[in-house]
Amino acid sequence: MRGPATDEVLIRRWHQVQDRIDAADAVGILLGGGADLKYLTDYEAMPLERITALVGRATAGIELPTLIVPELEEARVRPRPSVYAVRTWGDTTDSATTIASALPRRGRIMVSDNLWALHVLGLQRHAPNLEFVPISEAIGGLRSIKNSEERDALAIVGALADKVVAQIQHGEIPLLGRTEAEIANDIADRLIAVGHDTVEFVIVASGPNSASPHHDPGLRTVRPGEVVLFDFGGRFEGFCSDTTRCVHTGPASAEVLAAYEVLATAQEAAVQAAQPGRPLAEVDLAARRVINAAGYGDYFIHRVGHGIGAEIHEHPYVTELNTAPVQVGHAFSIEPGIYIPDEWGIRLEDIVVIEADGARHCNHSNRALVEV
Amino acid sequence: MRGPATDEVLIRRWHQVQDRIDAADAVGILLGGGADLKYLTDYEAMPLERITALVGRATAGIELPTLIVPELEEARVRPRPSVYAVRTWGDTTDSATTIASALPRRGRIMVSDNLWALHVLGLQRHAPNLEFVPISEAIGGLRSIKNSEERDALAIVGALADKVVAQIQHGEIPLLGRTEAEIANDIADRLIAVGHDTVEFVIVASGPNSASPHHDPGLRTVRPGEVVLFDFGGRFEGFCSDTTRCVHTGPASAEVLAAYEVLATAQEAAVQAAQPGRPLAEVDLAARRVINAAGYGDYFIHRVGHGIGAEIHEHPYVTELNTAPVQVGHAFSIEPGIYIPDEWGIRLEDIVVIEADGARHCNHSNRALVEV
Repeated sequence: MRGPATDEVLIRRWHQVQDRIDAADAVGILLGGGADLKYLTDYEAMPLERITALVGRATAGIELPTLIVPELEEARVRPRPSVYAVRTWGDTTDSATTIASALPRRGRIMVSDNLWALHVLGLQRHAPNLEFVPISEAIGGLRSIKNSEERDALAIVGALADKVVAQIQHGEIPLLGRTEAEIANDIADRLIAVGHDTVEFVIVASGPNSASPHHDPGLRTVRPGEVVLFDFGGRFEGFCSDTTRCVHTGPASAEVLAAYEVLATAQEAAVQAAQPGRPLAEVDLAARRVINAAGYGDYFIHRVGHGIGAEIHEHPYVTELNTAPVQVGHAFSIEPGIYIPDEWGIRLEDIVVIEADGARHCNHSNRALVEV
Repeated sequence: MRGPATDEVLIRRWHQVQDRIDAADAVGILLGGGADLKYLTDYEAMPLERITALVGRATAGIELPTLIVPELEEARVRPRPSVYAVRTWGDTTDSATTIASALPRRGRIMVSDNLWALHVLGLQRHAPNLEFVPISEAIGGLRSIKNSEERDALAIVGALADKVVAQIQHGEIPLLGRTEAEIANDIADRLIAVGHDTVEFVIVASGPNSASPHHDPGLRTVRPGEVVLFDFGGRFEGFCSDTTRCVHTGPASAEVLAAYEVLATAQEAAVQAAQPGRPLAEVDLAARRVINAAGYGDYFIHRVGHGIGAEIHEHPYVTELNTAPVQVGHAFSIEPGIYIPDEWGIRLEDIVVIEADGARHCNHSNRALVEV
């Protein structure tokens, strides 16, 4: 892992967030743990039932946010008196009382999308004059604009995943006769061996299983003459990789080859559409139009992509409903797919980061349907 | 993992839950993924931003619950038409619309404690006449009463963790000169080697770090003449282990020995207090009174225990605030601790399950402060 973020970096991020609270006509923010809280405090809260929260107000440049931690975890918190104040709550008190006392009395409060219902419903009772709004609805993601260092980090971790893709495409990872689960374990080991700190997920889907986009690798054995879909990612120095490639064991049928050609064309169209200022929806639709025109529209059953950074899935989501503009600093996947139930499925996924002149690929492995 | 739950088992569980919805004066339930949803459907939802939900109504014995899944994950769902109906929502629709259409129009709805704020706030707008209540507030946990087979499963996984405790206590795991992180990795490997399916967490806290109850194992090297606290758990066939033991590298001081004596007495008092019908608070207080009387009250900074089962932490929580009764079938940890900041900390943790005649230990390793 990289070293801790400096106070200076954290203070700058907090001031930016205060500006965004203000611009959203909100009076404060409540983060309930996770990557957003870590982004502003460098503190990694335990993802258990005892809530850790960061509460802050819009008053620009004046007030520090308050980090509210379970008493028994206080010793894990590094004091940073110029970044945050620390308060604790104990197992014999109600966390909602402590959190509510740090919130403004009235107005709109932006809350983490994944704050627990237990906490948000409790706070609604404690603070009946506050209006709670999910952060994503108020301002989109807190971390969706990556600076150049963060974009480079995504390119670096993407290159690590590409190394494992190359091993698959070069036939270095045996497939025939092995189960999906065995191959997935092998890939997990290789993700670490090439330099990831952690493995986040590995999908290996063979033959008809490839038609299930989120297939769990299981006991099916890879056979000759079928699609094998690989989708995997890990984490390096706090940033995530995520890439999908398909191979074919032996020659592919004309039907699969034709569909793959459509898929690759659709992906490239979406990459070209990912220009600053254009709607995110247009990135989705650029791929979707190609797939629809080829008659596969009913078989592309998901959005074209999701944001990525400290989390595998984060804002912005690239769907035909998201009319917000593509911005310099966005980082997201472009991953159209075509899935014929009970027969085969194909998907092609790269991570891109948005620069002033358009999408920059974080993945550079072969985009063809390689025969192995 | 054990084989899938039969339809018969799932239907019986659902009817029991319907009775509990009814008894809580509620009209329905909304589960947002996780262990509760798996308990009623045997389906493991992906813990990502696309919501999977189980929605059901109190109408006993008539209506099936509805499993609402993201369209791209439908192929992962096993059809069980006598257990649940399946509906999907897609990336171009709003999940809240689909979920709200399956909910009753008015009345109290029990929702998963950890349902995302994004979803509960969205549903409040879609269904303004529904009152959303966290399940824990309405009825405590959905799975807090374990049947005899589930209690046996906790004893079996507890015995696996005990094997690794014995390796530590017998000096088979080198400590001196190794970092906490190295030792934690070693323990993780051993948890798997003795038979766990997964490792859930490993705390190794040495010297002054043992005073931080949730310490992250780090680069500190274990030295002679100090406490080393171990707290770890894994999963076997869907049930979790969780045990804490301390050792001392070389002879312990009279101060530490005296405190440990208090700790062991406190733990035993709590075990004795865990009788069906007595308040859960009395279990906490039985340990707390012993520690208070010895003058360590300010240094016991957490509740005495938490429920355990398919999750490491679940209901019932054993705190001095929880006046609900101990019930046959409860399973929880009993883990008092004494933490002197910057000096040392000690904790002693066993899992117990409640039988008609009182607490049955799932852990049987040596409870002494063993010198290694």
